[in-house]
Amino acid sequence: MKFSFKNDYSEGCHPKILEALSQCNLDQQNGYGLDIYSENAANIIREKSKSPESKVHLVSGGTQANLIVISSILRPHESVVSANTGHIFTNETGAIEATGHKVHGVETKDGKLRPEDIQNVLDVHANVPHQVKQKLVYISNSTEIGTIYTKKELENLSNFCKEKNLYLFMDGARLGHALTAESNDVTLEDVAKFTDVFYLGGTKNGALLGEAIIINRQSLQEEFGFHIKQKGAMLAKGRLLGIQFQELMKDDLYWDLARHANQQAMKIKQTFKEIGCNFLAETDTNQIFPILENSQIEKLSEQFDFYVWKKIDAQTSAIRIITSWATETEVVERFCQEILKLK
Amino acid sequence: MKFSFKNDYSEGCHPKILEALSQCNLDQQNGYGLDIYSENAANIIREKSKSPESKVHLVSGGTQANLIVISSILRPHESVVSANTGHIFTNETGAIEATGHKVHGVETKDGKLRPEDIQNVLDVHANVPHQVKQKLVYISNSTEIGTIYTKKELENLSNFCKEKNLYLFMDGARLGHALTAESNDVTLEDVAKFTDVFYLGGTKNGALLGEAIIINRQSLQEEFGFHIKQKGAMLAKGRLLGIQFQELMKDDLYWDLARHANQQAMKIKQTFKEIGCNFLAETDTNQIFPILENSQIEKLSEQFDFYVWKKIDAQTSAIRIITSWATETEVVERFCQEILKLK
Amino acid sequence: MKFSFKNDYSEGCHPKILEALSQCNLDQQNGYGLDIYSENAANIIREKSKSPESKVHLVSGGTQANLIVISSILRPHESVVSANTGHIFTNETGAIEATGHKVHGVETKDGKLRPEDIQNVLDVHANVPHQVKQKLVYISNSTEIGTIYTKKELENLSNFCKEKNLYLFMDGARLGHALTAESNDVTLEDVAKFTDVFYLGGTKNGALLGEAIIINRQSLQEEFGFHIKQKGAMLAKGRLLGIQFQELMKDDLYWDLARHANQQAMKIKQTFKEIGCNFLAETDTNQIFPILENSQIEKLSEQFDFYVWKKIDAQTSAIRIITSWATETEVVERFCQEILKLK
Amino acid sequence: MKFSFKNDYSEGCHPKILEALSQCNLDQQNGYGLDIYSENAANIIREKSKSPESKVHLVSGGTQANLIVISSILRPHESVVSANTGHIFTNETGAIEATGHKVHGVETKDGKLRPEDIQNVLDVHANVPHQVKQKLVYISNSTEIGTIYTKKELENLSNFCKEKNLYLFMDGARLGHALTAESNDVTLEDVAKFTDVFYLGGTKNGALLGEAIIINRQSLQEEFGFHIKQKGAMLAKGRLLGIQFQELMKDDLYWDLARHANQQAMKIKQTFKEIGCNFLAETDTNQIFPILENSQIEKLSEQFDFYVWKKIDAQTSAIRIITSWATETEVVERFCQEILKLK
Repeated sequence: MKFSFKNDYSEGCHPKILEALSQCNLDQQNGYGLDIYSENAANIIREKSKSPESKVHLVSGGTQANLIVISSILRPHESVVSANTGHIFTNETGAIEATGHKVHGVETKDGKLRPEDIQNVLDVHANVPHQVKQKLVYISNSTEIGTIYTKKELENLSNFCKEKNLYLFMDGARLGHALTAESNDVTLEDVAKFTDVFYLGGTKNGALLGEAIIINRQSLQEEFGFHIKQKGAMLAKGRLLGIQFQELMKDDLYWDLARHANQQAMKIKQTFKEIGCNFLAETDTNQIFPILENSQIEKLSEQFDFYVWKKIDAQTSAIRIITSWATETEVVERFCQEILKLK
Repeated sequence: MKFSFKNDYSEGCHPKILEALSQCNLDQQNGYGLDIYSENAANIIREKSKSPESKVHLVSGGTQANLIVISSILRPHESVVSANTGHIFTNETGAIEATGHKVHGVETKDGKLRPEDIQNVLDVHANVPHQVKQKLVYISNSTEIGTIYTKKELENLSNFCKEKNLYLFMDGARLGHALTAESNDVTLEDVAKFTDVFYLGGTKNGALLGEAIIINRQSLQEEFGFHIKQKGAMLAKGRLLGIQFQELMKDDLYWDLARHANQQAMKIKQTFKEIGCNFLAETDTNQIFPILENSQIEKLSEQFDFYVWKKIDAQTSAIRIITSWATETEVVERFCQEILKLK
Repeated sequence: MKFSFKNDYSEGCHPKILEALSQCNLDQQNGYGLDIYSENAANIIREKSKSPESKVHLVSGGTQANLIVISSILRPHESVVSANTGHIFTNETGAIEATGHKVHGVETKDGKLRPEDIQNVLDVHANVPHQVKQKLVYISNSTEIGTIYTKKELENLSNFCKEKNLYLFMDGARLGHALTAESNDVTLEDVAKFTDVFYLGGTKNGALLGEAIIINRQSLQEEFGFHIKQKGAMLAKGRLLGIQFQELMKDDLYWDLARHANQQAMKIKQTFKEIGCNFLAETDTNQIFPILENSQIEKLSEQFDFYVWKKIDAQTSAIRIITSWATETEVVERFCQEILKLK
Repeated sequence: MKFSFKNDYSEGCHPKILEALSQCNLDQQNGYGLDIYSENAANIIREKSKSPESKVHLVSGGTQANLIVISSILRPHESVVSANTGHIFTNETGAIEATGHKVHGVETKDGKLRPEDIQNVLDVHANVPHQVKQKLVYISNSTEIGTIYTKKELENLSNFCKEKNLYLFMDGARLGHALTAESNDVTLEDVAKFTDVFYLGGTKNGALLGEAIIINRQSLQEEFGFHIKQKGAMLAKGRLLGIQFQELMKDDLYWDLARHANQQAMKIKQTFKEIGCNFLAETDTNQIFPILENSQIEKLSEQFDFYVWKKIDAQTSAIRIITSWATETEVVERFCQEILKLK
């Protein structure tokens, strides 16, 4: 069977998580997220993000986190602004619209939203009350194409949103990869400071499942549990999420796993550069998008699995290579050798 | 710490599940339910229910299963009929209404819907198009108060629904307990035959999480995956659900665990009978509702945790005792001894 | 053709309205409710209800008014309490649920909600966050079965709602009939004082269409126009509603028409009493529900149309007789003569 | 007061409508669209569109028609494709999204959708089930910027939609203006043949309010009344709509009024051309978009009201001039004289 670089959720979970699940398996705990593991996880997250007043809620997946957060915040006539590469705009089967809200998709050059992008949306929606009212800005970090926000960019967005009375929500399905990228200058504390709500993704960074939603703004914290329950996201055995985030966060395992994934990707990126490849986007995280000739793609796919991401012209396409906490060095080396043969 | 009889999801999962998760942990699999474990689980379920044309989908929890199934079936003007003890009517934070549909709650004597109950709803909603149109009947087996349907009752319901052009949907969060109750005469095959859709609950019968939705009627199978995704219920690592249901179903572990829970409950029920107790409902599954004097309740709760379910009068209340796959014989014996002291 | 007592919207509108429509027909006005007639109507309503800070919005019909008001107020996890005779509970094709919210239907003896009815709902929904949160109380005056609230009852409800942090919303589709009933002791000012939102019905009291929503509580006034537009209820020619309410309100035509309807009903009620009839409910407004023998119903329906409302037993049923601003004295006299023949 | 060219709903209605309303004002009729006038109107429309099997429903306004039609057709995971100038995409306060459905906005050069525009949307939504499924195409005729479809274009769209299993829905808020434009080659019969659903706008063509929805495809006709009622659009006095469409349709008044509006616009357009103006779009209907210097705009607005539609550069902007059934020749002449002074 070919090794797959198709995504970062092909394997199970980090062994420490299975160990922890086994160790406390028969302890009786309260249901619905009121177990001590979930409480511990929340405390560690608050501490590490230096945000003692934040509320932490654990849910199963990214689409779920997005739809619960967004529908809990917006009133019926309010809308959310996203890059048009944003996960909520095209890859969630209309999950946000299904809760009643319009998503404005904005063309960007690198998957990142800037204040002027949002201002453009505001400008063409000034005809009150005949148009929806923008109230929320959705960004992903790292983005769906692997790029990351700088501290300055985040701060600018945050200031702009405050000035325009908009909330800022960060989808952190791959926040671990963003914050451990070599070029990154953003801390978890910054994220907590600059956003109203964000989440830390577990599914793509070593957990079996789970995203930790952190609500920083107090007015958005009220009665959040109702929304989790109503959308079918409150696990009876919330312990399953609590134990995992406890393990991931307590000794920085979370950051180590993400850094590992990034490093494996960077080795591969470097090797593609060595053979003279260009890339669809400049990325320092666990997703890379080298542009290859079709014959090279064919060759490479004899032993490895990956997505052909975007046709560039008749002869060339960009592929997506994605690494994870579980990508072993030996596999990467084997892959790099194959790349070098393409020259 | 006191032993808890509060619910059947206080512990983790059956050890065989943890073992299976460990064994295949690093195998690479397709995401989103397209892994081989999910496929295996589906095949076993189809085989055991002798329903080769059914489609099987694995999701995380009961509220999620209910809201996805119901909203996928109904058109905007259609509604669902439930017992007023039904989980969807009062215990899911309006999850069904949040998808746009009315739930009619019907008073019943034992948590079970009968054709005449549904007919009564139809009778007072004949003023087309000024009233919602009933299109779906929701039942739970075992019910939320521990009772079970007989084969004859299910068949009658099924015939009635067909005649009235209604779909029949069974919430099987505790279907294991229903089908292994001593007084039960319904088989899994019967369930597949008499319902349009049902689900097999994992969360309350030994899994970490998971419900297996089985869609028997072909017209309801189409494009179901879109609904799972849109409601945030499609796990990236669907393998987590697949492995669990594979383990539970392949050697009848599922039925053994449920039978164990029932037997523990029956021992306790018998002991309450010995001291002359009455019960709120006559149940043969893992939930029992003995009526005790308040002083007895106080005494019993010194060493054991359970819910006081319903006040009967100034002196007496019904409590709920619930057992599970994990309830050990030794604990049950200790509990029974305490009960006998109440006499 | 038989004369119909089936409802109070069988005819067009009061001639003064047609006259006013003609007079200003070619005046150019701003669209979407920003015309001077709508503004005048709003001013008159505010003045007559001694509620200068209220906001007034004109929409087309009762179901529309109900669904816009309720969905603009509630957050996704919140619900509304209604009598189970309430229009929103059974006669609006699930319009409220279609906006995502549960309606709790409460059994009452006379169509009127009392604090204890609401408290009963609160009592069985205390399991946060597994159950919807009640946030709004919906009442109708006159009710769907013709009864009316006393000032004391309204005041009690209002106090109860404030204490429980619930909003109070009055459906006034027939508020004219309520406030002009002989037994009434409630003023328009009282209604504005005791409710957070109410509406004055035009459709059933002399207009072609139209209900005037009056929002008394300031926090519920914000951005209401967005909701009107989103639900498709903002008429381009809002002048049509403005002109009608201007005509109805400016010289008390509204109250005169309602009083006329009530008086015609009371003559008929008196005649039924003379022949010894009982009634399904004791009403002083334009709806009466006499109980007749089936043979009497058959006889009466030879010359007049009305609804058979409810079967009482094998021999008798209640019928519904409803009068309107357009019911002429001559017709009522003819009907009364027929009634007397039934003795 | 300045004469307004801001829109085509500034006045009341054509005098014949007021006359008809007066004549039958006190006739008793069934409510909710079951009156004889609504039936007559439906019959005339079916006859004139040579579509005897179509169903006709009368509602109050365009946003209402759009949201009812679209939400009645789509299942939860399905979406609608529109030009990004389409009324549903930007000018209805998210009305469609509020019913749960995504609207894809497509950039076009003239407000008209072409098969390739739709194909582009299909192409980037092929990742089943992670993306919404396109099921409906929404077009306006005349478009929001005054352009019209040719017969060939409509036929192509219709064929494309059939091939791709998409429904075609035409917003005809200004269908009268489209079909009576000088350059038009489409008949009402064509519209009925090429679309699955369309509507004939009354509000912008001489009625007080009202749009006639015509459902041509049989499978979309079923139970449509439920949707009208649920969305609050079923008028108790449906006669108000029936009488108006009866008057408009019976002697071709509808087409005469639209043609009048177009002709007035064409006179104005011609005059702008005489002074050398360019236009934002080439239109033959009642909306024209001349581009003027800011000083010219200022001058013109001294005596006439209109919208400045779009800034072109620092010196020039496009304005929108819109005429209606009520625009008198004398006013148009006065306006043209002012235009000529701008030269």
